[in-house]
Formats: sequence, structure tokens, C-alpha cells
Amino acid sequence: MSLTEDKLNRLLNELSFDANGLIPAIAQQFDSGEVLMMAWMNKEAVKATLTENRGVYWSRSRNSLWRKGESSGQIQQLKEFRWDCDRDTILLLVDQTGVACHTGRRNCFYFAIRGDEVTTISDVIIDPSSLYQA
Amino acid sequence: MSLTEDKLNRLLNELSFDANGLIPAIAQQFDSGEVLMMAWMNKEAVKATLTENRGVYWSRSRNSLWRKGESSGQIQQLKEFRWDCDRDTILLLVDQTGVACHTGRRNCFYFAIRGDEVTTISDVIIDPSSLYQA
Repeated sequence: MSLTEDKLNRLLNELSFDANGLIPAIAQQFDSGEVLMMAWMNKEAVKATLTENRGVYWSRSRNSLWRKGESSGQIQQLKEFRWDCDRDTILLLVDQTGVACHTGRRNCFYFAIRGDEVTTISDVIIDPSSLYQA
Repeated sequence: MSLTEDKLNRLLNELSFDANGLIPAIAQQFDSGEVLMMAWMNKEAVKATLTENRGVYWSRSRNSLWRKGESSGQIQQLKEFRWDCDRDTILLLVDQTGVACHTGRRNCFYFAIRGDEVTTISDVIIDPSSLYQA
């Protein structure tokens, strides 16, 4: 992706950010279609995602830009940047290194209802303590 | 899905709704993996989705429960209900009848950046005027 600064600014004006200046962004593994996670972006995060070609979000808990994988190494290489009819949700197609979830699971959506029970449907594949070492 | 009322209430207490009482819900076509749309649910919508086994959202513009497809016929049969590690995003696996998007496209994410251009990547497959007749 290589929008000119002019086109990038036009896109930032076109997207609909909420009262907190944020827009939800869904990350999907580009080849398998697996939905990996949902996080939030502000204008700065959209800009960083598009110029660095990787998933960059806004951390609402840390109140700072969050380059996904910067401490864990589990980065998201950007394959395509899409948005929806209402211009208020982003869909990133990415190539996820390792795991998207801080619990060490491939994706964050591991709670499910099966039959009449709430259950956990995917396994931890990377020890989370190895993801966030001091 | 057939949670007892007790388990359903436990789930509603466990999910993290925002300051407006809403939680984002991503709808994904269960077999193809296509991400169809993102919308919002309140507790009532979660309850209706799980008891009626179809996608039911909260319309922020109409300020009312929105049984997806109730006027257009483009319903979402619920295949699986999942949520994420932070309990603040829902992922519905659904079987979408026809189109998810009010523009008559199969999914809502039809704006994309290709090369250095913003472009529209999917076609209208149902005339939107036929979806919302008086």
C-alpha cells in the first residue's frame, strides 16, 4: 500500500471515528479467513498501519499507539486494508506471525456456546509467559 | 444453542458492555469465512440472538432492536456464538441469506486500497431498492 499523503488524508477524513476518536478494526488472516482479533485505531494508528504495512492499533488501556507484536514478536503483516459501507469499521487482512491472542492462542475468539454449555474451543499454542518477557 | 436462563444471565453478566450498554458483534459466514459486517448488540440483542438463533442487533440510528433481515428478508441463521479473551467483542458464525449489506453487496467491506488507489472491490448482486420496498 502506498497512498500519497494527500489520498491518505482524504481517507482519514472519510473514515468515521467515534466520540473518542476511535474506529474498530477487525484483523483477519488473509489466506485462511480466520478472524484473529478486534482492536481500535485512531487516526495516528490508521496512518501508521498504512505507512508501515503492519497492524498498528490504539491501546485504550495504555493510552498509546500499539504496534502489534512490538514486545511479543507476534506481528501482523498487512495484506489489504478494507472498510465498510458506513465507513465506521475497518477490516485488515493480515499475515499473523505466531499468535494474535495474548493468551497464546492463535485467535482471541475462543469462548463459544456448544449445546447448552459455555466452552473454550481452542488451545494455547505458545506459552504466554514466553511472549512478554522482561 | 439452548442455554438455560441461568446460564444466559451468567453470560450477560460476563460480557463487557461499553458505557452505552453495547458490545460490537462481527458476523462471519460460517462456511466460507467471509466477514460480512460488524454491528452492535445490547443485552436484549444478545438474548434475542441466542434464543431465536438468528442475528439480532441494536440499531444505534433507530434506537431499537434490529432483527437482521426483518424487512429485507436477508436473515442470518446463527451457527455459532463466540466471544473473545477480553469479553468485549462477539463473533457470530452465521448462514447469511442473500446479502448482508444494505447496498446489495454480499458483505459490507467493499472499500479497499489497491496499489495507490481507493477502490470498490465487490459488486452489487441484489438491487437495493428491491430489499426495502414500502
